[in-house]
Amino acid sequence: MRNPLSDKVMKIKPSGIRKFFDLVQEMPDAISLGVGEPDFDTPWHIREEGIFSLEKGRTFYTSNAGLMELRKAISGYMSRRFRLDYSAEKEMLVTVGGSEGIDVALRAMINPGDEVILPEPCYVSYLPCIELADGVPVTIELKEENEFKLTPEELLAAITDKTKILILSFPNNPTGAVMTRSDLEPIVKIIKEKDLFVISDEIYAELTYQMDHCSIASFPGMKERTIVINGFSKSFAMTGWRLGFAMGPAQIISQMTKIHQFAIMTAPTTSQYAAVEALQNGEEDVEMMRKSYNQRRRFLLNRFEEMGLRCFEPRGAFYTFPCIKEFGMTSDEFASRFLKEEKVAVVPGTAFGECGEGFLRISYAYSIEELKEALGRMDRFLCRLREEKC
Amino acid sequence: MRNPLSDKVMKIKPSGIRKFFDLVQEMPDAISLGVGEPDFDTPWHIREEGIFSLEKGRTFYTSNAGLMELRKAISGYMSRRFRLDYSAEKEMLVTVGGSEGIDVALRAMINPGDEVILPEPCYVSYLPCIELADGVPVTIELKEENEFKLTPEELLAAITDKTKILILSFPNNPTGAVMTRSDLEPIVKIIKEKDLFVISDEIYAELTYQMDHCSIASFPGMKERTIVINGFSKSFAMTGWRLGFAMGPAQIISQMTKIHQFAIMTAPTTSQYAAVEALQNGEEDVEMMRKSYNQRRRFLLNRFEEMGLRCFEPRGAFYTFPCIKEFGMTSDEFASRFLKEEKVAVVPGTAFGECGEGFLRISYAYSIEELKEALGRMDRFLCRLREEKC
Repeated sequence: MRNPLSDKVMKIKPSGIRKFFDLVQEMPDAISLGVGEPDFDTPWHIREEGIFSLEKGRTFYTSNAGLMELRKAISGYMSRRFRLDYSAEKEMLVTVGGSEGIDVALRAMINPGDEVILPEPCYVSYLPCIELADGVPVTIELKEENEFKLTPEELLAAITDKTKILILSFPNNPTGAVMTRSDLEPIVKIIKEKDLFVISDEIYAELTYQMDHCSIASFPGMKERTIVINGFSKSFAMTGWRLGFAMGPAQIISQMTKIHQFAIMTAPTTSQYAAVEALQNGEEDVEMMRKSYNQRRRFLLNRFEEMGLRCFEPRGAFYTFPCIKEFGMTSDEFASRFLKEEKVAVVPGTAFGECGEGFLRISYAYSIEELKEALGRMDRFLCRLREEKC
Repeated sequence: MRNPLSDKVMKIKPSGIRKFFDLVQEMPDAISLGVGEPDFDTPWHIREEGIFSLEKGRTFYTSNAGLMELRKAISGYMSRRFRLDYSAEKEMLVTVGGSEGIDVALRAMINPGDEVILPEPCYVSYLPCIELADGVPVTIELKEENEFKLTPEELLAAITDKTKILILSFPNNPTGAVMTRSDLEPIVKIIKEKDLFVISDEIYAELTYQMDHCSIASFPGMKERTIVINGFSKSFAMTGWRLGFAMGPAQIISQMTKIHQFAIMTAPTTSQYAAVEALQNGEEDVEMMRKSYNQRRRFLLNRFEEMGLRCFEPRGAFYTFPCIKEFGMTSDEFASRFLKEEKVAVVPGTAFGECGEGFLRISYAYSIEELKEALGRMDRFLCRLREEKC
């Protein structure tokens, strides 16, 4: 029998996070600081709206682009929160989480051989989705000394005649880096000069600390060049509901909707009704969760300092990205030994790009109690490693 | 500003069904026999299980391939109902409806230029999904005189050196055709001889009348060559839940899971818990709905006969596909006039392939009352058309 598989797909590497979780699964008593999802249940009033919609028998398809009621609520919320003004009718697509939005945007925009600039470390899906869409990923290694922000120099150096798209993902997974309005200004200038487009994954937009999120699409002249990806998973603790959205120029959104219609049909109906409630009455929940994440963030940073572990201060998302270069091990070796010896799971930085070598992603979407216990074990582990070195 | 869009995507035609629905939307008092989804609410005990899962706070990601509990339930159900034996661990992927399963299977298997044989008329997503995956669709025009089944002669004539995959979709949308075990036998022989693979969309497997569904994967030697697509939308009236599954050889399923993990992440969690209940305690509901569809099917066929409208007897799904060639109009003209003059929406056969010209898809996923009223109007319309011709 011949090979049933696509050459392209076989070449795509499986997720490095996933590989690590397989190890963790075999250790049921391990503490995991590895997962990229909120530890909070979805707020009750949002779940209740999902329950109502089921009780009322709203179990049918919605329109392909999503419930108009939801799209209007998204439009209002985005305008109010982030000064992003998009038409519910023409410039918005409700997707199966942010993930589908990224995949469909890339499928709609890439011609074979188009280069897509991807600043790393970053979330694990971008690179394979670029490759699946026949694009050529051009990675930029973001630097710890720049607080893992993209600099105009780095961007310029990566641009060629074939560059079409820049993927931006701030607040960033895994580093927690954010880019402020003034950080983005020179980037915007280059994007316009070089006639590029941006796919801006802003799924963590609500989770910034001591500052507000700034969307690149809010700069003059950038709305027509940007697809904004966002969703309910991180901000409203709604990962399992699988609901996100993409906003952009009508011309691009209509092609994305065509792909979505054929490949996915519609986002889940119950989730769409619940999401309307989230947008209308969920801001206090978001605030509560943000405060709680911030408290944990500070706890982690303080503990790292006590342990003498270098860590750039993350201003967004719910991850820290401490540097472990002093121990002379790869991230993978460090994480494997830490899991084996102390039963704490963290993700090697290399899962998010080669330049993540020498770093770990430690999530703080866990209770303070779990964090305390895990960091206690980490302290013990680091002491042991330092003793070994002597 | 340059063109942001992919050439390939721009060339893909929008759905012909959708185009027609846009017209219907402007006529709120029209009766629609156009939609491809059950008119039943999801059975209460299944919705209740979704509600329980929300009450319990099960709002997190599941594993990428789907809840193990659900995969085990699917495995048991498929074995019991269709003699299909698949491992829950290695040979199964829970998807966002059947739609995602089809898209991901094609993405996992096609190399650029591979030919995919597509018997038409068929559901509107296959062709664009083949094109999106860089495959070359090779259509076969199924014939009314063959009861819209695929014949071995037709299949042989379509096969070239480049053929890799055959898409089978029986029970069929839009014709209602089924293929029995003896119909499939010569097809199986060719598939093996020519070393081809099959993507078998069996989403309507539970909706067959006076006969049981036979899956091509149940033939000896075909399991290793077939991806079976199925789901909960049609059989359990769960369209809005967006839940399906793909079953196939471990080698293919693992690559599909990789794509699914990056592009979609997981299927919705609430839907997965509800689906376990559907499989464990939903067989009576399926039986009730099947009986009801069958009653409506007979009603439509009787009425067509009374009107002198030729219609091949569909044995599956919930569609009829009457022939309107005698009226000397295109399907599109007929459907447009019928909608305009009698306010009844049906779908032109050409929405499902060019060979659908001269036919209409009329769904019977509507109450007998609606069907009576709509068919009364159709009778009047046909009389008028026949008078015009004299």
